[in-house]
Amino acid sequence: MPKKVRIALDAMGGDDGASVVVPGAAISLSRHPDTEFLLFGDSKLIEPELAAHPPLKAASRVIHTDVAISNDEKPSQALRRGRKTSSMWFAIDAVKQGEADVAISAGNTGALMAMARFNLRMLPGIDRPAITGLWPTVRGDAIVLDLGATIGGDAHHLVALALMGSAMASVRFNVERPTVGLLNIGREEMKGHEEIREAAELLRAMNLPQLNYIGFVESDGIGKGVADVVVTEGYAGNIALKAAEGTARQMEGFLRNALSQSWPRRIGYLLARGAFRALRDKMDPNKSNGGVLLGLKGLVVKSHGGTSAEGFAYAVDVGYEMAHYDLLTKINQMLNRDGSALASAQTAQEAVS
Amino acid sequence: MPKKVRIALDAMGGDDGASVVVPGAAISLSRHPDTEFLLFGDSKLIEPELAAHPPLKAASRVIHTDVAISNDEKPSQALRRGRKTSSMWFAIDAVKQGEADVAISAGNTGALMAMARFNLRMLPGIDRPAITGLWPTVRGDAIVLDLGATIGGDAHHLVALALMGSAMASVRFNVERPTVGLLNIGREEMKGHEEIREAAELLRAMNLPQLNYIGFVESDGIGKGVADVVVTEGYAGNIALKAAEGTARQMEGFLRNALSQSWPRRIGYLLARGAFRALRDKMDPNKSNGGVLLGLKGLVVKSHGGTSAEGFAYAVDVGYEMAHYDLLTKINQMLNRDGSALASAQTAQEAVS
Repeated sequence: MPKKVRIALDAMGGDDGASVVVPGAAISLSRHPDTEFLLFGDSKLIEPELAAHPPLKAASRVIHTDVAISNDEKPSQALRRGRKTSSMWFAIDAVKQGEADVAISAGNTGALMAMARFNLRMLPGIDRPAITGLWPTVRGDAIVLDLGATIGGDAHHLVALALMGSAMASVRFNVERPTVGLLNIGREEMKGHEEIREAAELLRAMNLPQLNYIGFVESDGIGKGVADVVVTEGYAGNIALKAAEGTARQMEGFLRNALSQSWPRRIGYLLARGAFRALRDKMDPNKSNGGVLLGLKGLVVKSHGGTSAEGFAYAVDVGYEMAHYDLLTKINQMLNRDGSALASAQTAQEAVS
Repeated sequence: MPKKVRIALDAMGGDDGASVVVPGAAISLSRHPDTEFLLFGDSKLIEPELAAHPPLKAASRVIHTDVAISNDEKPSQALRRGRKTSSMWFAIDAVKQGEADVAISAGNTGALMAMARFNLRMLPGIDRPAITGLWPTVRGDAIVLDLGATIGGDAHHLVALALMGSAMASVRFNVERPTVGLLNIGREEMKGHEEIREAAELLRAMNLPQLNYIGFVESDGIGKGVADVVVTEGYAGNIALKAAEGTARQMEGFLRNALSQSWPRRIGYLLARGAFRALRDKMDPNKSNGGVLLGLKGLVVKSHGGTSAEGFAYAVDVGYEMAHYDLLTKINQMLNRDGSALASAQTAQEAVS
């Protein structure tokens, strides 16, 4: 019988803490029965929730912690106060100690990154972490990174993101050689920031067997599904993601409003409601929940703070999958194959400049 | 009788040239009869189109030019080949010579900016041009700039954009003190690029009577209508705009597809088609057509290259409005009031740093 996937949960994370985390874990467990959970947090809040989910209770161990990181704590503050005391810290530490395969938190993003970086450390050759996300496209999902972990970054940083994103795509989409594009404001070679043009030259020069670099992608190309992986530094990635999410919500609102304004429209809505459900399902931000923190010596997944139990379950699914298919080994292979891909980026960089 | 608005058109610009530009101008003329047109381009292509629009013909003068700038010419190349020869150049030059109040082109954006900058020159204190756009929100439109004219920029550049965008909003929306936000990836003071945080400090310190600085705006806040003007450098602005446009198109596509998949849905669509028309109307990219180039000593408007006559007419409307309400004087007042707003930004900068 294969090994179970062991998931450490920060049960205090997110706007609703245990009341979302526990039922969310229960939903994910029903989809992946080969999971075990470590639940970190206030046992007085966790136990009553667990009591309502006997199968989860049977697959879980609760570890009481007194401290919970709040959403408005600065990373440095959270690290000072929450180190070796908080549910977030202990969930990450379980990965560090080899007691869990992945840690999941819906808590304060900055604090989660700071703690993960401090405790797990970065992979060799990687300077700064990235957050990945799934972006619904007309041809399935695309992986977009970085969605806001690190602002700015040189060509070397972008190449590292391309390698890690590609490793994740090969696991997630089960493809041999994912297509990878660099986010830019035009497809022409001359456009964009210098570091993006330089990263493009590097990726082309490296010509990797496990990554198909296809060139620049504009932000309206992500949803067209032109690449499996779209790479950008965190500022632009976050801007793109939120512009898309905002537009989707705005259109839904307009449509809902317009459909309620007359009886024929309301009847039309009833007849066609399957179509609206399909649309909502396609663009459901819950389904894209679960951002994998990449670049660390351990797996950490960030859930949206304001998500529902259903949404949190998707983040748990992501953590399950990444652990089950051993993303970390895949990334290490990617970074180290043929000597070292990142060292070869360095060589290519010297050749180019 | 008030002065007519004189509009110079690059009749060769865009994917379809005169066959879109001329009927587009005719539509706009029907909305603003107090307009006169100068049409620059190949008279053999313009005259037959004009013949189909007698009122426009009566309000127009055609000036034949031999050279048309193509969409794939680099700015430097276009400037070399098209200077004092092309329809684009002469449309801009008509503004320079005082023969027109505004120039409008659907041609090559890079070439248009290069020629406008070379011929009209920048306003004192402004280093680089910006392109503005209208962004549909739940509470009317917002002005977003820069949408891609200038990549990157320091705090001083962002403050200049805020001043010019605010002048444009006061003209376009007829408000005394438009609300202005800086695009960022979080609303907290500590987040984002240094130049954005610095621009925020400057705008706060300047405390201008004609501009209400409201803080950082995330890209999902633009569509919520949280500010009349949202300011960003051109890379992020372009990324945000295209992510939003792409998502809108994607959702429309999903919905159209889902609505055609069964008879009840198709009947539902027929009953509710007014709602879909309202949605399409709300999100119609044609209606947002017409990007004003700001920072120049003259008015220039850029239309999408692939637009229809209806879309081009919206760009002409924008040009008409900006000239009619004398945006340029408004911007000059904004930059020079109380000595000079930009000099006061400099002073504030010294005080801050």
